[in-house]
Amino acid sequence: MRNFIGVDLGGTNVRAAVVTEEGAILERAETETLAQEGPDAVLVRVAGVAREAAQRSGLEMGEVSACGVGAPGPLNAATGVVIYTTNMPDWDNTPVAARMTGDLGVTTFLENDANSAGFGEWWLGAGRGSSEMLIYTLGTGVGGCAIIRGKLHRGSDQMAGHLGHAILVPDGRKCNCGARGCLERYCAATAVAREAREATERGKDTGLGRLEPGKITAKAVFEAAEAGSQYAKDLIGRTGRLLGIGIATMVNAIDPQIVVIAGGMVAVGEMLLGPCREAVRANSLRPASENVKIVAAELAGDAGIVGAAGLAMRRLDGEKAE
Amino acid sequence: MRNFIGVDLGGTNVRAAVVTEEGAILERAETETLAQEGPDAVLVRVAGVAREAAQRSGLEMGEVSACGVGAPGPLNAATGVVIYTTNMPDWDNTPVAARMTGDLGVTTFLENDANSAGFGEWWLGAGRGSSEMLIYTLGTGVGGCAIIRGKLHRGSDQMAGHLGHAILVPDGRKCNCGARGCLERYCAATAVAREAREATERGKDTGLGRLEPGKITAKAVFEAAEAGSQYAKDLIGRTGRLLGIGIATMVNAIDPQIVVIAGGMVAVGEMLLGPCREAVRANSLRPASENVKIVAAELAGDAGIVGAAGLAMRRLDGEKAE
Repeated sequence: MRNFIGVDLGGTNVRAAVVTEEGAILERAETETLAQEGPDAVLVRVAGVAREAAQRSGLEMGEVSACGVGAPGPLNAATGVVIYTTNMPDWDNTPVAARMTGDLGVTTFLENDANSAGFGEWWLGAGRGSSEMLIYTLGTGVGGCAIIRGKLHRGSDQMAGHLGHAILVPDGRKCNCGARGCLERYCAATAVAREAREATERGKDTGLGRLEPGKITAKAVFEAAEAGSQYAKDLIGRTGRLLGIGIATMVNAIDPQIVVIAGGMVAVGEMLLGPCREAVRANSLRPASENVKIVAAELAGDAGIVGAAGLAMRRLDGEKAE
Repeated sequence: MRNFIGVDLGGTNVRAAVVTEEGAILERAETETLAQEGPDAVLVRVAGVAREAAQRSGLEMGEVSACGVGAPGPLNAATGVVIYTTNMPDWDNTPVAARMTGDLGVTTFLENDANSAGFGEWWLGAGRGSSEMLIYTLGTGVGGCAIIRGKLHRGSDQMAGHLGHAILVPDGRKCNCGARGCLERYCAATAVAREAREATERGKDTGLGRLEPGKITAKAVFEAAEAGSQYAKDLIGRTGRLLGIGIATMVNAIDPQIVVIAGGMVAVGEMLLGPCREAVRANSLRPASENVKIVAAELAGDAGIVGAAGLAMRRLDGEKAE
């Protein structure tokens, strides 16, 4: 039984785990990212949690077959270099894979964090056994990943799978990526929270008026909806519907068997997924529109860790990051 | 040298050619579709032009390795059955591949017409040698096709590649497919013609006022633009820009090396392609946005015929229509 280390390098925390080749998590380790200290200091901590997870699992580093690091990008998985990041300062052209391989003495592969999480959900979660799967992770932004013909689809510049940057509304809301109208500006948890905050500040009866504006999060919107706020219910339904329209475009292009919705927002369940499914059916072509499954993710926070480990295994076994 | 027959079954004409395994066209044959006579009569004519092309090439049918028929769909390429068509009456569940194989005595494969044309352009035209290619054919509708990792991407229900039915404008113009806001409602040649016709009828200075409304085609709009009509120039630029926004979504999802624009409308060249490229750059992520090539098709009307023949060759050689 081979063992792999998967690392999820996030803007707030770095999490690592030892994952067996069958996908079982042995032990974990975690620390704060402290991104403001820059990439050198962060990479020391990445190596630290990787070592700690191995040690807790009773493994020498020599007994670890490979390590996978899921990191924010854009990045080049083939060369192992982060090109730039929008959330952490000074990461331009950082050779993460080479640095980690040198530091740990274990072959390390770099992956886009959204691809790691998507691959994890496909390998062990809601997408198990599908040939084509798309995933949308609704968080600060909307992370995406496309599995096509049983492989993570990377694209010609390692830039495929950015489903959150589908242009949902031409000339719509300005996005951090420089474009206008990206899906994530309408469907991310932060977009929902912002819309509710602005409506509350305008004096609308949102059911959120008792909260400080800073406390109006997507979670608070869901709680308001469950407590009966019509505004909150409508906002969630509208968000699901817009997400479904974005998904319909991809159903017509890629024709997946399954589309997985991940991130804290899916906890609200059918209030979001119902209108999403309805919009997919109404806006994509039969029979794909009828056969595609739209489901909630299953692995929650572990998807990124197991996915990074699983991709490291595949790449060690010869799959190119083509 | 093996020979294949490629057939392009269109709403107006049926065209066939003998194509060598290296992609050279030997001889052609053509007849009217007369779709109103129904599928039985049309399929007799399809077999007829296939035989005629073989005969002109000096070949017995026994010397033809396989035949490929590109037809309107949706259809199931794996089973060889047309599911339904929006443009020809009474084709529901017609087993085209089985009928042609029986009639011709040559193994016949059925393909979506847009996929045939896209594959042709990838095999022998503007997309030669690329691993990921998207094509948009601007005509009555907008046909699409996606080549992914060197293969025609079919999807889990044989419904992939319908790039003309990307939802460009949520709740936008009603489309024949039942959805609203499809790209083809804004970027097809017919959409351009309709917009110019309506503007002319409203009395706008379009440069087309001397024409009967029925003569205001996309071609007439281009001629007006070349003759100096600012309205016509703006309309073409706006169309290119909207097409580019739709392409940007797919660049972020699939990250192709090349996007090919086909159909009569590309004759206008940079007036359309310039704003299209600009919109792709502005609305998709670096470095994919900078590296993707947006080019005009090279094969014109032959793409569908050679593509149907080329796909028949690949499938005869064991590639599944998975």
